[in-house]
Amino acid sequence: MAAKRPKDPRERILRAAVSLFAQKGFSAVGVREIARAAGVNSAMISYYFEGKTGILKDILQEFFARYARVFESVDYSRMSDEECARALIRGLVRFVRDNTDMALVCYNELPLDVPEIAETKAEKMAAMISRIRGLLKKMGLDPENAFLLSVVGLSLISSIFAQFRSRPVLTRLFGFRFDDDYFDRYAEAIATLFLKGVGELSRRGGPRSQR
Amino acid sequence: MAAKRPKDPRERILRAAVSLFAQKGFSAVGVREIARAAGVNSAMISYYFEGKTGILKDILQEFFARYARVFESVDYSRMSDEECARALIRGLVRFVRDNTDMALVCYNELPLDVPEIAETKAEKMAAMISRIRGLLKKMGLDPENAFLLSVVGLSLISSIFAQFRSRPVLTRLFGFRFDDDYFDRYAEAIATLFLKGVGELSRRGGPRSQR
Repeated sequence: MAAKRPKDPRERILRAAVSLFAQKGFSAVGVREIARAAGVNSAMISYYFEGKTGILKDILQEFFARYARVFESVDYSRMSDEECARALIRGLVRFVRDNTDMALVCYNELPLDVPEIAETKAEKMAAMISRIRGLLKKMGLDPENAFLLSVVGLSLISSIFAQFRSRPVLTRLFGFRFDDDYFDRYAEAIATLFLKGVGELSRRGGPRSQR
Repeated sequence: MAAKRPKDPRERILRAAVSLFAQKGFSAVGVREIARAAGVNSAMISYYFEGKTGILKDILQEFFARYARVFESVDYSRMSDEECARALIRGLVRFVRDNTDMALVCYNELPLDVPEIAETKAEKMAAMISRIRGLLKKMGLDPENAFLLSVVGLSLISSIFAQFRSRPVLTRLFGFRFDDDYFDRYAEAIATLFLKGVGELSRRGGPRSQR
């Protein structure tokens, strides 16, 4: 996964932290370990960030800025409701595919208790749900119904994340190859399930050819 | 949440660990902290378990034993496919409600890299998916289609877990009260979404009265 190493030390620290947090979990990783992986001195981390929690905060900020862009990139005006939903789900799957480690860190850490960033987390979570609300309203859900919006919104987001979270185990169990074709079929299956339910997915026999 | 404290020290250690792991994440918690919360000596933990990882292993075992019982408790023979799905989803939501901390620990830790228990995790994950496969076959999904079974299975399981994971944030954001009525409506909404898709949920205006 290691692309060309950026020159900017701040960027190097962030990348190393994202990768380590995704693999071991935020609390299992120490500042020295991040410094070592980033090829910088520990003091450099204190210079750029408010400690390890500061790094996590920056990762959350960056992640949600990118997440917001996915929603902005779908042009609702020329599409039917169903096309909108499919385009957005496709966009979200690609987004998580292209930012897997970062997405997993945010998804895994959001429910855990890290008091220093409780505020940031609640705020980001609210933004996450409120972004998806636009789609749900378009799909006919009553916008006043906070219960239903949160159930359906979180359900959809979790479904999109599920394969990414379980990737190592799925590779081990079924030998799936996580290539572009896989993710396209994945997005299509999630969209059909979300729009029409499992019955429709059965009738179609699933999206295109299967393994 | 602290019910009557069990006398058995092994049980006390397990309960304390489950609660701490759920709150802070497995790797953020030390053996001494568990001993303190359980009111036992650290040496007692070494006596009963192979360290902290041994405790996690036992939690996984216990969790999946209980999970299996949910599937065994649903009598498929007298129900339609849809009734089966609803009964099973209701059972799973109640199961997670009654074992929230334990369920969150297992859900959160499954994708993380703890080499000592990689084997146990893969095995449990396979069991988790294979249990849900029975339902999916019943719903008409091609049992040879591993891709679709894993996408739909993990999607359903993640949807069931989603509200539990986000409970503190949802309470903060929307003031939801997580009582029995809430979880019944939750199970009903997830089941409708799974069976018929978001369109049907919109038409029905969601399960019963809403906040």
